[in-house]
Amino acid sequence: MTPILTAEQINALLERDIPQIVGEEPIFRVINVASGTCTLRFSPNESHLRHGGTISGPSMFALADLASYVTLLAHIGPRTEAVTANLNISFLHRPDPVPLDGIGRILKIGKQLSVMEVMIERVDNRQLIAHATSTFSVPARKT
Amino acid sequence: MTPILTAEQINALLERDIPQIVGEEPIFRVINVASGTCTLRFSPNESHLRHGGTISGPSMFALADLASYVTLLAHIGPRTEAVTANLNISFLHRPDPVPLDGIGRILKIGKQLSVMEVMIERVDNRQLIAHATSTFSVPARKT
Amino acid sequence: MTPILTAEQINALLERDIPQIVGEEPIFRVINVASGTCTLRFSPNESHLRHGGTISGPSMFALADLASYVTLLAHIGPRTEAVTANLNISFLHRPDPVPLDGIGRILKIGKQLSVMEVMIERVDNRQLIAHATSTFSVPARKT
Amino acid sequence: MTPILTAEQINALLERDIPQIVGEEPIFRVINVASGTCTLRFSPNESHLRHGGTISGPSMFALADLASYVTLLAHIGPRTEAVTANLNISFLHRPDPVPLDGIGRILKIGKQLSVMEVMIERVDNRQLIAHATSTFSVPARKT
Repeated sequence: MTPILTAEQINALLERDIPQIVGEEPIFRVINVASGTCTLRFSPNESHLRHGGTISGPSMFALADLASYVTLLAHIGPRTEAVTANLNISFLHRPDPVPLDGIGRILKIGKQLSVMEVMIERVDNRQLIAHATSTFSVPARKT
Repeated sequence: MTPILTAEQINALLERDIPQIVGEEPIFRVINVASGTCTLRFSPNESHLRHGGTISGPSMFALADLASYVTLLAHIGPRTEAVTANLNISFLHRPDPVPLDGIGRILKIGKQLSVMEVMIERVDNRQLIAHATSTFSVPARKT
Repeated sequence: MTPILTAEQINALLERDIPQIVGEEPIFRVINVASGTCTLRFSPNESHLRHGGTISGPSMFALADLASYVTLLAHIGPRTEAVTANLNISFLHRPDPVPLDGIGRILKIGKQLSVMEVMIERVDNRQLIAHATSTFSVPARKT
Repeated sequence: MTPILTAEQINALLERDIPQIVGEEPIFRVINVASGTCTLRFSPNESHLRHGGTISGPSMFALADLASYVTLLAHIGPRTEAVTANLNISFLHRPDPVPLDGIGRILKIGKQLSVMEVMIERVDNRQLIAHATSTFSVPARKT
């Protein structure tokens, strides 16, 4: 499964469409695209932390969802009308406030539905922190 | 299944533990507690919106997760060490930027695991916008 | 949401399409159809039991999946090309070998995707035994 | 993560505990155990097929659930009281009636909860047919 967008192209799309997430000091940034996979790096700041100093659940969700989305776009092109239909996330280990990689992988690309999985790992020691499976719906193109 | 905390008690817990979420103008607020259920009202502001003016996925996750958590606490008391082990969310309709209710319901309270479901509805017309099922792990108390 | 098939019509469809499941002594049988909901009764026999005398996981899955399917058909008509895209099931209490009801409820009917939830309850004491959420894909009709 | 049971030991456990599944001509058989992973081969017969000649949903669930279970046992030993708390399965491609491998992988082994994922692939061409994530609860040992 050959990607059709580069990391740079996807980052440019994110900056255009969701600047509040990507920010000046990029919080989310695609660092790798390869066959069937894409890695999104998350560099959390104070606003992503919860009571006790762990990364908040919504921030973990954001990483899982966005890693799925960029993995999909990398392989189908800039179909930015793709929407999340379902996301199932398992929290495996305490998310200490350190940079995380969301490593997305294509499980299926279909005409109506695409399915991805995401491994969320610490950048420093590669511990698996969370795992997600997501289903995206891509509306049929008008012809 | 009789609740053991009131809406006011749960709101006080939220304000103490996660003030950044609850805020001065409360963004999340428990408005009802009854047998086996609890309703959390979400009043989104600009920071919860995404490109296109819809409520962002992470904000929807926050509502589902927090509604599960307050529903659990209402029935087991202030066990704030409860953590989300798994959350499965289905996005059903476009989340326009209007107040939403997360209506939590206890499916099981167990010694190790508790399971809740959450219906996310628009306050104005009660349209169902999303549905979530969550599994929480409550560490055994040290005795 | 008004159903367009009766319990009898759905049972006739099941008998035609999946006779091995429905059997002579019906194992699965629709007993109620109402607005947005449908109840499928499961009368397990020896073949559905697992070591220890509990109902097997695959039988619980079959009930959740089939209850979703009949709830969908009841509301969209005999679109028997509908297929399960995703099913998330939580096992809540030990499934003793007694008749169970799978109570399906429509969460969304869409052009491409429909979402249902199923409560699996004991017929005798209405204890909630399992809960499932399912996503079905219905191929676009050729015109 | 070093496995502590061999494929032969796990197959012997399955034959003892769930002979109806394993059968004379083994339908399910562990064919590989390695660090953090275990492969269960499923050789379907007529009883596993559904209308249209595809493998039935409950049979796919059985493969996902059992592959999770044997992957867990391989790494924690014969804790046969482990029970499935949640299973999320995505059906990706039509399951033609051919042998399938359920390739389990440990995502987390915890004191209360363990999480596994399973890739279900055709043996002949390695096409990915389904993907599952499962959460198992292992009761605390009485000491």
